[in-house]
Amino acid sequence: MAFYERQTKGFVNIDPLQTGGRLSEDAKRVLVEWGDGYSVCDFCTGSLFEIKTPPIRTFVSKLLPEFLGTEYSRITNGAREAKYAVMHALRGKGEEWIVMDGNAHYSSYVAAERAGYRIALVENSEYPEFRVTPERFAEVLDDVAKRGNVRLALITYPDGNYGNLPDVRKIARICESYDVPLLVNGAYAVGRMPVSLKELGGNFIVGSGHKSMASAGPVGVLGFNEDFADRITRKSERYRNKEIEFLGCTARGVAVMTLMASFDYVARRVKRWDEEVEKARWFSRKMEDLGMIQLGEKPHNHDLMFFEAPPLYEISKKAKDGRFFLYRELKKRRIHGIKPGLTRHFKLSTYGLTRDELRYVLDSFEEIINKYSG
Amino acid sequence: MAFYERQTKGFVNIDPLQTGGRLSEDAKRVLVEWGDGYSVCDFCTGSLFEIKTPPIRTFVSKLLPEFLGTEYSRITNGAREAKYAVMHALRGKGEEWIVMDGNAHYSSYVAAERAGYRIALVENSEYPEFRVTPERFAEVLDDVAKRGNVRLALITYPDGNYGNLPDVRKIARICESYDVPLLVNGAYAVGRMPVSLKELGGNFIVGSGHKSMASAGPVGVLGFNEDFADRITRKSERYRNKEIEFLGCTARGVAVMTLMASFDYVARRVKRWDEEVEKARWFSRKMEDLGMIQLGEKPHNHDLMFFEAPPLYEISKKAKDGRFFLYRELKKRRIHGIKPGLTRHFKLSTYGLTRDELRYVLDSFEEIINKYSG
Ligand SMILES: Cc1ncc(COP(=O)(O)O)c(C=O)c1O
Ligand SMILES: Cc1ncc(COP(=O)(O)O)c(C=O)c1O
Repeated sequence: MAFYERQTKGFVNIDPLQTGGRLSEDAKRVLVEWGDGYSVCDFCTGSLFEIKTPPIRTFVSKLLPEFLGTEYSRITNGAREAKYAVMHALRGKGEEWIVMDGNAHYSSYVAAERAGYRIALVENSEYPEFRVTPERFAEVLDDVAKRGNVRLALITYPDGNYGNLPDVRKIARICESYDVPLLVNGAYAVGRMPVSLKELGGNFIVGSGHKSMASAGPVGVLGFNEDFADRITRKSERYRNKEIEFLGCTARGVAVMTLMASFDYVARRVKRWDEEVEKARWFSRKMEDLGMIQLGEKPHNHDLMFFEAPPLYEISKKAKDGRFFLYRELKKRRIHGIKPGLTRHFKLSTYGLTRDELRYVLDSFEEIINKYSG
Repeated sequence: MAFYERQTKGFVNIDPLQTGGRLSEDAKRVLVEWGDGYSVCDFCTGSLFEIKTPPIRTFVSKLLPEFLGTEYSRITNGAREAKYAVMHALRGKGEEWIVMDGNAHYSSYVAAERAGYRIALVENSEYPEFRVTPERFAEVLDDVAKRGNVRLALITYPDGNYGNLPDVRKIARICESYDVPLLVNGAYAVGRMPVSLKELGGNFIVGSGHKSMASAGPVGVLGFNEDFADRITRKSERYRNKEIEFLGCTARGVAVMTLMASFDYVARRVKRWDEEVEKARWFSRKMEDLGMIQLGEKPHNHDLMFFEAPPLYEISKKAKDGRFFLYRELKKRRIHGIKPGLTRHFKLSTYGLTRDELRYVLDSFEEIINKYSG
């Protein structure tokens, strides 16, 4: 028997990677129903996106684009695979640049490297807010456009370190004035908060099923419009119904079923985003009462928050396990999500957690601080 | 509530896509345990392949390479993604060729298109065996090498149409003599039958978790040796632990856990491959007793078989539903896997089915033929 137990089962998990990907009850049920290998391909007629039973076709051609505020959508193996598909589809010959915000996730950077771009980063405003401003974006874009060929721009909305929400509308207008298409990386937005490419502007939007859409992993989504449809969905010369950038089919298995099963649930929860923001702000204030400092935008507009924690850092200098004391103390209390060894700075997420759970986290921090200050 | 039922549940499924990907009991259990989004990333320190809890690191660095007969391995999002990673990693500048067998799966072709290769196909021997011979492979390779730069060769072992097992040892020696690396696409081999790159020769081997390793989809495996390790695992310039061809991490979710949970089961079942071949041959003889003709290698060496079915084709010309009669009749009998509308030619797989189930399939064919000949 080979069984692997998930050690964090039953823990309060505040890891930003984990809070938005927890399965809905509906998703848990389809997991078992559709677990087998290529289960979704029983009635395939040549393309994942055209499968009618289960209704993947309706999802891809209607529900998902509506949700994303785009004309078309595709399901991918994740946010990074969606970004790479766009970057690769747009890549021409010779030296070409991509301009992206300095808060971009590593996977945006790596995807651009894989696609052979030269990469220009728009620095953030540094401590304490680390904002990416439209003004700075425009400066870098202008600078690079003078020196070379800018093929694509990317903005992370919000970023995965500070949970900052940059002004995409303005950035989209700037990109448009340079005739540079813009990709909005909404890995931490799509499925958590209301987001519509139509309202934001930009040409592509990417989301992550396992990060923010209550899905099993890996699975992601890509939205785009007519103007780039031919590029993105280019077909094989020999196999006329196979799309090259998706290697024919992407999420050919259970993950797409969890994405679809959670869709109602996700569509409902984004409507309660205000409550999530309010809860995050409340948590941030309580953390500050304990002597921590919330970095990034303030007041904050997202559940992902970055903290500087002088009281915990001071303890780490003297504690027996040094900087591992915090991890150990939280583990004892069945709280997971702050990486072992971090005390001075860490990020966490309040998404989908109850106030009681969060109060328990706050009380635990307080208890730990008091214990070591005694 | 959003629940999607799998309509083929409880059917005898002879679709070659489905017979090797059915979950083991162990895999079913981990499905529920590890269903949530990025569940496997709770204890990540920067790379999926290095995660110790759950023991993905041991799996990738030890168990899987041993199983594949290679020095290294990686987990990918599927066989096609593994092929594309190799093709892309090896791709240089300018015009470059890939030589592949004419029985190659569409996804090999599409991956080569995406990577920007010119593609030369080695034709098979046509009706009735459709074999790809080392002699013909050598001719095409020689011909293309005279005209251009051949960067890679690919052989499908076995192919997904006829279930033919070409002589990879000879083909590997030929490629070696031209200094052309060889990729063995073992999507229908790895996890079904014993296969070792060390014994076969060649430089890369690819497998498919959801097709042949009793795993949820999508997930695949890639094996390779020291000589190409630097190319395949090239790191990001900015993020030193992120591998470019895998965009940092690939199967970051439940699918890799089903692959690992099924691994013992799969390792055991490949040892009983002789029984599977014997069963396939028995089934083939019984089909021929009913007037069908098994194409491809004969006697056959794999569970995937292609049949020509004159008796069914004759019926289709006169039946009320025309060529859909067969699908309907099989569905009535809860047998799934032959595509709607096919009667004259179809493929199927006997893998993992009991003799009783297969006898039921054979009896059903007989009954259907008799019913319409009455
Ligand atoms: C901002 C951001 N984008 C993209 C990703 C990657 O998402 P995926 O796993 O779907 O590729 C992450 C993951 O942490 C992220 O934080
Ligand atoms: C021979 C062969 N190779 C590769 C594949 C694709 O496998 P995957 O879905 O893992 O990319 C298939 C799928 O049918 C196949 O038949």
